[in-house]
Amino acid sequence: MTDEELLTLAIAEARVGLAEGGIPIGAALAQGDRLLGVGHNRRVQMGSAIRHGETDCLENVGRLPATVYSESTMATTLSPCDMCTGAILLYGIPRVVVGENKTFYGGEDYLRSRGVEVVVLDSQECVSMMEQFIAQNSELWNEDIGEST
Amino acid sequence: MTDEELLTLAIAEARVGLAEGGIPIGAALAQGDRLLGVGHNRRVQMGSAIRHGETDCLENVGRLPATVYSESTMATTLSPCDMCTGAILLYGIPRVVVGENKTFYGGEDYLRSRGVEVVVLDSQECVSMMEQFIAQNSELWNEDIGEST
Repeated sequence: MTDEELLTLAIAEARVGLAEGGIPIGAALAQGDRLLGVGHNRRVQMGSAIRHGETDCLENVGRLPATVYSESTMATTLSPCDMCTGAILLYGIPRVVVGENKTFYGGEDYLRSRGVEVVVLDSQECVSMMEQFIAQNSELWNEDIGEST
Repeated sequence: MTDEELLTLAIAEARVGLAEGGIPIGAALAQGDRLLGVGHNRRVQMGSAIRHGETDCLENVGRLPATVYSESTMATTLSPCDMCTGAILLYGIPRVVVGENKTFYGGEDYLRSRGVEVVVLDSQECVSMMEQFIAQNSELWNEDIGEST
């Protein structure tokens, strides 16, 4: 499937998270045309410190052989934080599609320095979703990126 | 509490994991003398791709204000993988106590480059535990560090 199609699935997950009262960040993992699974941030829903969009997606997908990860693409609505950057590196995912990096700029440079291809789609839909959420939930957002007080 | 005392709690967690049939890696998080929580790898027990020792510890501890993370020390029986390295960075944990880095050398250099103090205790108990586990469970171990086939 195309990068845009995979991102569309990640955006749908982000919207599920928002409807649940959570932080609207979603992710989707595919191996070629085969969708392996999706996920979304569940800090609020599960009281979780580690269920970001990408890590929730990896957890939902479950244990996979390295050969599958090595042929996969991870789409995420927002530039990945340090933890999700590390999860992508741990499993050797070679390609990451980022919805937007305007509201938060994560580990893209580090991913590239470790050989991961990072494609930023500059989705206005992703930007608008995060801008609106952050404006209304700044404390929760800061907590999610490790900056709350 | 001392680094050695915190590591002792992490080792106890690793032994719980081993007794459960899991991968023997444990972690403990403390703020000064106050233990915030412990955790251990649960790849086998939960079929989890993201519950490493450190991330399971962070999840068990739950959502914390950044001010608490910023005064905490994470002990782990084994040098942290890329994902756990990233989780430590996300939450601004300033100090990491590593049991051993002989059987696996993780993100220690990157942590230091980002300003995290990393103390390696060279625990023979930790080395022995991992060496014995890896010898008997090489496929499972390789899966956990993203290198299975």
